[in-house]
Amino acid sequence: MADEFDVIVIGAGPAGENVVDRAVRGGLTVAVVEERLAGGECSYWACVPSKALLRPVDLAGEVSRVPGLSLGEIDVAAVLARRDEAVSRYDDSGQVRWVESVPAEFVRGRGRLDGPKRVRVTTEGGGERVLTARQAVVLATGSKAALPPTPGLAEADPWTSHEVTAATAIPERLAVLGGGVVACEMAQAMHGLGARQTTVLVRGGGLLGRMEPFAGEMLAESFAEAGIDVRTRTDVARVERPEPGGKVTVHFAEEPPLEADELLVATGRRPATRDLGLGSVGLADGKYVEVDDSLRATGVPEGWLYAVGDVNGRNLLTHMGKYQARICGDVIAARARGDELPAMRDLADGYGAPQVVFTDPQVCAVGRTEAAAREAGFRIRVVDYDMGAVTGAYLMGDGYRGRARAVVDEDRKVLLGVTFAGPGAAELLHAATIAVTAEVPLDRLWHAVPSFPTVSEVWLRLLEAYGL
Amino acid sequence: MADEFDVIVIGAGPAGENVVDRAVRGGLTVAVVEERLAGGECSYWACVPSKALLRPVDLAGEVSRVPGLSLGEIDVAAVLARRDEAVSRYDDSGQVRWVESVPAEFVRGRGRLDGPKRVRVTTEGGGERVLTARQAVVLATGSKAALPPTPGLAEADPWTSHEVTAATAIPERLAVLGGGVVACEMAQAMHGLGARQTTVLVRGGGLLGRMEPFAGEMLAESFAEAGIDVRTRTDVARVERPEPGGKVTVHFAEEPPLEADELLVATGRRPATRDLGLGSVGLADGKYVEVDDSLRATGVPEGWLYAVGDVNGRNLLTHMGKYQARICGDVIAARARGDELPAMRDLADGYGAPQVVFTDPQVCAVGRTEAAAREAGFRIRVVDYDMGAVTGAYLMGDGYRGRARAVVDEDRKVLLGVTFAGPGAAELLHAATIAVTAEVPLDRLWHAVPSFPTVSEVWLRLLEAYGL
Repeated sequence: MADEFDVIVIGAGPAGENVVDRAVRGGLTVAVVEERLAGGECSYWACVPSKALLRPVDLAGEVSRVPGLSLGEIDVAAVLARRDEAVSRYDDSGQVRWVESVPAEFVRGRGRLDGPKRVRVTTEGGGERVLTARQAVVLATGSKAALPPTPGLAEADPWTSHEVTAATAIPERLAVLGGGVVACEMAQAMHGLGARQTTVLVRGGGLLGRMEPFAGEMLAESFAEAGIDVRTRTDVARVERPEPGGKVTVHFAEEPPLEADELLVATGRRPATRDLGLGSVGLADGKYVEVDDSLRATGVPEGWLYAVGDVNGRNLLTHMGKYQARICGDVIAARARGDELPAMRDLADGYGAPQVVFTDPQVCAVGRTEAAAREAGFRIRVVDYDMGAVTGAYLMGDGYRGRARAVVDEDRKVLLGVTFAGPGAAELLHAATIAVTAEVPLDRLWHAVPSFPTVSEVWLRLLEAYGL
Repeated sequence: MADEFDVIVIGAGPAGENVVDRAVRGGLTVAVVEERLAGGECSYWACVPSKALLRPVDLAGEVSRVPGLSLGEIDVAAVLARRDEAVSRYDDSGQVRWVESVPAEFVRGRGRLDGPKRVRVTTEGGGERVLTARQAVVLATGSKAALPPTPGLAEADPWTSHEVTAATAIPERLAVLGGGVVACEMAQAMHGLGARQTTVLVRGGGLLGRMEPFAGEMLAESFAEAGIDVRTRTDVARVERPEPGGKVTVHFAEEPPLEADELLVATGRRPATRDLGLGSVGLADGKYVEVDDSLRATGVPEGWLYAVGDVNGRNLLTHMGKYQARICGDVIAARARGDELPAMRDLADGYGAPQVVFTDPQVCAVGRTEAAAREAGFRIRVVDYDMGAVTGAYLMGDGYRGRARAVVDEDRKVLLGVTFAGPGAAELLHAATIAVTAEVPLDRLWHAVPSFPTVSEVWLRLLEAYGL
C-alpha cells in the first residue's frame, strides 16, 4: 500500500532529514512530513541567516584590531542579499529534491499522530492523507520561540529569532528581551549593521547565563564598549505598541520607559508539540517528548515512537539534533533487523553539548561548567588562562582579549568541560569536544603539541597552569 | 664555584628557554649562553615577524570574500611598525629579565663545548669564561638558512628568512628560490604588501612538497589567481648582482633570465653546529646532533649531552623544539634525582609533528601523509572531503575553497594523519593533533559532535565519508 512506510518522520528540519538519510541507508522506506519548508528553522530562520548577518560584523571587528587595515562602511544591502542567498530565498525546492533523491517520500502538510504508528496529514488546500508506519514514527518538529506573559507583549507583535534573522531593514532603535545566545548574537548583528540604539534587557543577572560567568562578563564589557546598552535585572511591566509596526514602548516597574522601533523577544523556546496528536498515544500535549539514549520516547507501549532534535528537549542545538538523528535512524534500522545496536546511543548529550556563540568575542564551550561539575558531585580543579597572553592571539590583532577555562576531573585526570571566549574562538572548540568526549587523559594531551603561533597554544598554557 | 651549574644550555631561543624553565622548576641551577638575542630566531626573524606580516594580508583575503565589506589599501608602514613591535624592536632585554627571573644565569657570548660537561664562552669584547656542568649540557643552537651552491648566489648577498622578515621596505620585484613553508609564506606576505612582481622558483615539482600533494596544488592555484608567478622544475644556473643591493638577475639553463630587486633564498636549513666544539666530545661538526627520545645525544659517554629544537633535526618547528625542551628539562632534573621518568619521552615527533602554513589558503597537517603512511607499511584508507561543501565554510565567504584529508589506520581504526587546506584553517589543526596523538578510535570521534555552523563540521563529513 502506497501510504505505508517503514518509518514516518514528522518535520524535515536538519534532524528529520538526518533520520531520513540514515534510515534509508539502513534499508528502510521513509516518508517525511513537513508543514513549512524542508530544511527547517535552522536553514531559514536561525543558524544560517544569523551567521550570514554576523560574519561581516565579526570580520569588521577583526579588521579594526589589525594596524594597516581600514574598512569602509558596511554595505547593509549586500549583507542582506547574501543572507537571502544563504537561505535560498526561502525556497526549499533544493531540499525537497534532496529528500526525494535519498530516496524518500516528501509529504507537504501538517502531520499529527493518530494513534499507534499512524500519522494523519492535513495537506495544503485542506486535503487529508493517512500514513502508517511499519517500524517507527519519529518526531522532529523542533521548537518555537516562547513569549513571556508580559502584558501587551503578544499584541505588540514583536520579532522573534524568526523575524530578526529575516529582517529586510535594520531598525534604528532595537530593544532586545533576553540575554541568551539568540539575544546576544542578534543584538551584535543588528548593532553592527546599523541599529544605533540597541538595548538588551535581561531579566536575570547577566548575559549567557548557562555558560561560565566570565563569558557573559567579557561579552557585556565588549557590548558596552561597542555602545550596546545591556541592562540586567530589568523588570518589564508591560509593552505598548499602538500602531502595528510602529514605535514600541517598553514599560518597567521602576525605570523610565524605553522607546524603540522594534522589539526582539529571545527569552526561551518551547517544544513544537502542540496540536501534534500526542494525546492519541498517551503523551501530554505541549511538553518536550522524553526519550532514552536510543532516542525512543519513554512511556509509549511497543516503543515505536522516537523524537530527535529540539522536540525532545535534550539540547536545543542543530548539531545535537542531527547527531541524535543519525543515531535514531541507525537504531531504527537495526531494530527492524532484530539488532539492538548497543554501541549507537546518545552519549554526547550526557557529556554536555558543544555550543558556539558567534558574538565578538566569540564564546564556545563543551562539557560541564565549573558550577555544573560541582553540582554533579565531581571532585574538580578549575584552570583559567588569559588567552591574550598567547603569542598567536597577540598576532591576531591589538588588544586581543580572551580567556580559557578547563574543568578537570581530579579523580580521573580528564577534562569535564572547556570554555573559550575570544575573537575567532569558534574553531578552537572541536579540539575540546574531542578531548572531553574521548576522555583523553591530561598526560596524553600533554603530547598533543599546539602549533606555534596559533591561538590553540592556549592548550599548552592550560596544561602548564594545571601543573604538567 | 660561581661558574659551575647543574645545567648549561647553549642557545636561548624558545627551546633553550624552555629547558631553563623546566630544569629550574626541577630544582637545578642553570646557566644559558646566547650569542645573539635571547628569544631566538623564532621571536625576531621567523615565526613571529612572519605572522605579523602575514596577518593583514590574510585578513584582507578574508574580507575580499565577504560581500558588504570593502577594504582600503593596506598601510604598509603601519604593518611594518606592528612587526617591529612584535619583535620588541630587536631588543631582548625583556627576555633576559625573564631568564633571570626564573631564576637562571644569562651569559651573553658564543658558547663552545670544550670537552665533557665544559662550555667555553667567548664573551663580547673577546673575553672568555669557562662554565662547567654538574649534570648536563643542552645544545639549543637552532638552525641557519642553507644556501645552495649556485654560482654567484652567495656573492649576491640574497635575503634569507632572516632578512625578509626584517624587511624595512617591500621590493617591487621579488624572486623567491624555494617552494617550502618559508618561501610560500614570504611570497604571500611580500606580494600582499606590494611586491607586484613576485616569482617563486621551485626546483622540484611543486609547492609544500612534504605535505599532501593537494595542499601545494591548491596553494599554487591561489598564487596564480593572485598574480604570484610560480615556476616549477626550474634550473637556476647562476645569479648575478653587479652592485651590492642593486638589481639581481637569475639565469636559468633553458629560460630567459629573470630580473628582480631582491632575491629571497628559502631552500632549506642546516644545523647551527659549526664551530660549536662538537669535535671535543667526539661528535661531527656541522651535522644534526642525534638524540634519543629523552633528547639525550647518542654516542656521548656518560650521557651528559642533550640537544633540543632544530639542532637535533627531528622537526624544525618552534613548537616541537619547545615540546622537546620541556621533556628534556624534566628528564635532566629527574635523572639528577636518580629517576628515569620513563613517562616523559618525545612521542609527538614520532606521530608526525603538527605544522601550519599561514598562506591563503592556510594549510595545516599533523601525523603522516598518505605517502608516508604507506611507506611506513600501514594498511590505510584515505578519506577526502571538499571543505567548501561545509555550511560553516560557505558562511565564511564567497568562493571558499578547501579540502580535508584523513589517513585512517585500517587495522586499529585510528587516524594516522590529517591535513586541512582552506582559509582560516590554522585553528582547525589542534583537534586533529589531539585525535592523532591520543589515537582516539573513529567510533569515539563519532560522538565528538562539531558545532553547527563551524568549519569544524568537516570532521563529521570526513567520518561520514569514511562510512560511519
